[in-house]
Amino acid sequence: MTESSQPRPSTVADEAVPEQGLSRRGLLALGGGAGLAAGALAGGFATAAFTSKTTALSDTLEYPFHGEHQGGIVTPAQDRMHFAAFDLRADVTRDDLIELLQDWTYAASRLVMGLDVSAKGAFGGGPYLPPDDTGEAAGLGPSGLTITFGFGRTLFRAEDGADRFGLAAQLPAEFGPLPKMVNDFMDPARSGGDLCIQACANDPQVAVHAIRNLTRIGFGRSRLRWSQLGFGRTSSTSTAQVTPRNLFGQKDGTNNLKAEEPERLTEHVWISDGPVWSRGGSYLVARRISMTIEVWDGLQLQEQNRLLGRDKASGAPLSGGEEFTAPDFAATDAGGQLAIDQRSHVFRTHPDNNEGIAMLRRGYNFVDGNDDIGRLDAGLFFVAFVKSPERFAKVHQNMARDDMFVEYLKTTSSSVFLIPAGIAEGEYVGQALFG
Amino acid sequence: MTESSQPRPSTVADEAVPEQGLSRRGLLALGGGAGLAAGALAGGFATAAFTSKTTALSDTLEYPFHGEHQGGIVTPAQDRMHFAAFDLRADVTRDDLIELLQDWTYAASRLVMGLDVSAKGAFGGGPYLPPDDTGEAAGLGPSGLTITFGFGRTLFRAEDGADRFGLAAQLPAEFGPLPKMVNDFMDPARSGGDLCIQACANDPQVAVHAIRNLTRIGFGRSRLRWSQLGFGRTSSTSTAQVTPRNLFGQKDGTNNLKAEEPERLTEHVWISDGPVWSRGGSYLVARRISMTIEVWDGLQLQEQNRLLGRDKASGAPLSGGEEFTAPDFAATDAGGQLAIDQRSHVFRTHPDNNEGIAMLRRGYNFVDGNDDIGRLDAGLFFVAFVKSPERFAKVHQNMARDDMFVEYLKTTSSSVFLIPAGIAEGEYVGQALFG
Repeated sequence: MTESSQPRPSTVADEAVPEQGLSRRGLLALGGGAGLAAGALAGGFATAAFTSKTTALSDTLEYPFHGEHQGGIVTPAQDRMHFAAFDLRADVTRDDLIELLQDWTYAASRLVMGLDVSAKGAFGGGPYLPPDDTGEAAGLGPSGLTITFGFGRTLFRAEDGADRFGLAAQLPAEFGPLPKMVNDFMDPARSGGDLCIQACANDPQVAVHAIRNLTRIGFGRSRLRWSQLGFGRTSSTSTAQVTPRNLFGQKDGTNNLKAEEPERLTEHVWISDGPVWSRGGSYLVARRISMTIEVWDGLQLQEQNRLLGRDKASGAPLSGGEEFTAPDFAATDAGGQLAIDQRSHVFRTHPDNNEGIAMLRRGYNFVDGNDDIGRLDAGLFFVAFVKSPERFAKVHQNMARDDMFVEYLKTTSSSVFLIPAGIAEGEYVGQALFG
Repeated sequence: MTESSQPRPSTVADEAVPEQGLSRRGLLALGGGAGLAAGALAGGFATAAFTSKTTALSDTLEYPFHGEHQGGIVTPAQDRMHFAAFDLRADVTRDDLIELLQDWTYAASRLVMGLDVSAKGAFGGGPYLPPDDTGEAAGLGPSGLTITFGFGRTLFRAEDGADRFGLAAQLPAEFGPLPKMVNDFMDPARSGGDLCIQACANDPQVAVHAIRNLTRIGFGRSRLRWSQLGFGRTSSTSTAQVTPRNLFGQKDGTNNLKAEEPERLTEHVWISDGPVWSRGGSYLVARRISMTIEVWDGLQLQEQNRLLGRDKASGAPLSGGEEFTAPDFAATDAGGQLAIDQRSHVFRTHPDNNEGIAMLRRGYNFVDGNDDIGRLDAGLFFVAFVKSPERFAKVHQNMARDDMFVEYLKTTSSSVFLIPAGIAEGEYVGQALFG
């Protein structure tokens, strides 16, 4: 995981960071007493702005935090993910919410550089305070970390209809609940949430460290509702990446949208309608899909291929060619049958059969132990970005109605979050919503 | 995870593997019909013996399968782990058990080379059979995979006293149950088991693939009892490795036994007494230790250091020096107090205070979601190798009686497995037990 025995760069480079950033409440959450912490507040909110590094790191891959869109969407999909959803506590006000978003923005802007959550860090706050940073990522590099923040529907209007933060008028019309879908076995405690944070990195310890510390900064304001670790990416979001395999052994996401296709991203991913504040953002659909892998493993290879509509080994469509050959849905086999079954997964989900709709997928494999008859609790943590939730619903509906493949899936968690546009320097995530 | 879009080398290199290996029953577990599979049985049991590679792989690190000791003990600790325990079904005979161990040995000898579980593999068995291999590791290299097999106490004598396999007389006297320990909150369904398999690799998908496919080969004979994924190693087992950090942010296992200390391994790790069949093996102690990280994070840095007896940043003992300086338990601070508290973790567990007992640790961090008040279900999957379970119990007792550190831990799963000695070519794991 690390070739360096040095502490994270924070202990060296942090001297250069002004004593500002986390709010008084954020510092209190980290356990610093009010009196002791007050001195650190002079500068108020600001995102970390320097990028110099003074220490050799094992994984120095670093993505920019600021930009037109948030990181973790078209960023080349990192190997690991820790995803978390949060609810706001009952006594949280609009100002508290803004302060939380400022604190998270500040901390995240540091974390993606491989720094600790504050200038005091894991070891620098002196002996009489709990450290600001929990320390388990000390010595590890940024490892390609991206942190992506999102807003749940309940942030705008609570389940009971309450407009807790004066945001109800800003709720985009298309941000409705997803329709009930085939093979939904929802656990509400594992779905939804007022806010979400997606942390992706090539080192899982770096992703876990980010979620843990952002959770901690929120103490007293936000409460972790559910969380999910993914150990292996199942999509490529860049043409430079090889297509990985899911737990059915299939190349997954061959036809995924890629970072190198800006026009298609504009067409399919970035929000362009609705409230001005939301434009340039995207909708994240997260679904925890349990896969009945033991049943799947008993299917003939031919049947596995038929259900997918692709050759399992190469990923090529059954109409011929290689992995990236476009499927020919009219092609027939020697017996005159359609080469790609109309109920296959690729037929049902392909843009050609869904009014052209495509999505940017960023899923991860998971294994969370096993059940009491020895079946692995395994599957795909499906994450997709679309410019409107309806677009996902439309494809899913088409897939679920006839798709034979769905028989081997069981969705236990489903959520939609609006991912605000990118963050400019000196701003906080979603600032336009509160303008 | 992979730079290669090629299928695993199996589809290329497997032409060279004789059609032998998995038993008839093992092939049946993979779903091949009896008639179709029978042709593959001519050669009977044999471990895969060739090591040539014909495909460029992303992670080509490969450890030998055969040797004096099993891999996965002193092998430099890989980054990720998937651990699984199994129970044997009620109708399994001694011969079935032997056959299972032969099948597992054969498949494991292939997996550690980056091959599929059988010569037919994930894509080569033809369209009318379920593939022998589930395929999700196709295109990935061996990634330093080791597979370590172990025997639970119930293999020798079931909970009800039954000697199911005629092995009771072979049970080593020292292989008793661990005493009840402080902060034990055991879940029996997550503890024990007749057999265990530890899969460690640098790519978690490779480790998961190994456990999943070995589980599958055992269908009808063994049933997965419990399993655990670890995402980040918390120990070094080689002097070439940097000491990683646990979820308390501490460098963990600084004083661990290392592969480069063969004499100390002989003294502390390898079984030298008891039944001849067991010698050269080791006892694996596995404990799933939940860490109250939110409580810990609220402690002053000074207190965190005091509980451990080391400086959190550097890992140096509080008596001074750097990480690998030996602790001086007599040293005092400016105020005349002992620099290292006698109730600290390092004091309680150090060999100097435990009749010289040391162990080889190979633990992993885990995060398995969160509870319903938003606390991460996080901790350390503790794995240690000792030449006798009593040695672990002695250190643990000394630690638990007074160790302040233990207040922040809660053990929910505890198991001991006897890891048989290494496997010679043409033999199967634990063969000496059945001789």
